[in-house]
Amino acid sequence: MKKYFSFEAIMNMKKQERVHFINSLGGFKSVSLLGTINNQGQTNLAIFSSVFHIGANPSLIALIFRPSPPERNTLRNILDTGFYTINHINENIYKQAHQTSARYDSDISEFDATGLQPEFKNDFKAPFVAESNVQFGVEFKEQIEITINNTIMIIGEIKEVYVPENCLCVDGFLDLEKANTLTCSGLDSYHKTVKIDRLSYAKPNKEITSIT
Amino acid sequence: MKKYFSFEAIMNMKKQERVHFINSLGGFKSVSLLGTINNQGQTNLAIFSSVFHIGANPSLIALIFRPSPPERNTLRNILDTGFYTINHINENIYKQAHQTSARYDSDISEFDATGLQPEFKNDFKAPFVAESNVQFGVEFKEQIEITINNTIMIIGEIKEVYVPENCLCVDGFLDLEKANTLTCSGLDSYHKTVKIDRLSYAKPNKEITSIT
Repeated sequence: MKKYFSFEAIMNMKKQERVHFINSLGGFKSVSLLGTINNQGQTNLAIFSSVFHIGANPSLIALIFRPSPPERNTLRNILDTGFYTINHINENIYKQAHQTSARYDSDISEFDATGLQPEFKNDFKAPFVAESNVQFGVEFKEQIEITINNTIMIIGEIKEVYVPENCLCVDGFLDLEKANTLTCSGLDSYHKTVKIDRLSYAKPNKEITSIT
Repeated sequence: MKKYFSFEAIMNMKKQERVHFINSLGGFKSVSLLGTINNQGQTNLAIFSSVFHIGANPSLIALIFRPSPPERNTLRNILDTGFYTINHINENIYKQAHQTSARYDSDISEFDATGLQPEFKNDFKAPFVAESNVQFGVEFKEQIEITINNTIMIIGEIKEVYVPENCLCVDGFLDLEKANTLTCSGLDSYHKTVKIDRLSYAKPNKEITSIT
């Protein structure tokens, strides 16, 4: 049995209730840790569920910044230094990852506060998260203002990637379950996944098949 | 053991291999069916894995259109009529949902081609997918050109929502597992989820707890 919510019913929800409700409607999301460093050498780590793919040629990834702190340290570091890392979250670190969303004073690194380990490698300017199985380094490319709700979209190009060897498939697909990557829903719900199927490229009048 | 991919290694991948690889890196994604109708009354249905939440006040949802068909029928219908529906995908319909990505001739409705049922209700202009458990109607608000890779972001406001009564939690959160909503990774991989935890709002120096 479905429950119907009119526009008025949605608008009449308490603010925090609407935040949970609308955020959930978007479906399952990627959830990852963004690692940055400022020009004084202080690291920052923040959890984001607004990272999304926008294209593979060039290799671009985007994310949304809300108008309020604490994410703004991440944004400032990206704009100041031009580089950031994106690190998938797994079951061993999701609580520490969630804890990075607390509003720490700006002189405290969330790496120190949560115990997650910064990992610098290959001369990439921003820190990776050592405990993360899927890590990639990104260079800032473009900032787009979304004026309708005062949010900012940041687009970056993927510059280098680290993935577990056993999750790489012959066609380039990454088996994220083998990397223990989690997904999230709403503001605060973390989930493992169970693969149902990979499906072949769809064509009219041709039955799709499973890719094994 | 991690495998390292330099920028050059990524750029040297075969095009389709890079598409799978980069798309996978974005992590798990929402996957849903967009229902539209043109001004001549012909319905259209298309699968998207680029739907994402951008704000709850107002209630906004965005999606990305690539520069090529077949998604362009959906985009044209959204711009012509101003309305569209977003319908979560569950295990009963994921194959039909995937099949909507085939390049059908423009006089064929993907509802007819796949057997999914269009559902018109409450005078909302665009068709919902009857077999979907989580459905919402959206009004077009804004089009943003992403010039760096010739994609288009469409932003809409959520106007009405239908969800299973038993998946609605007291704080507004929707238990999408109870609605059998799936997630996807890469271009073609479909997954169920298993909830690990909901975590309390994080504060400095305060242990996070599970929300039950």
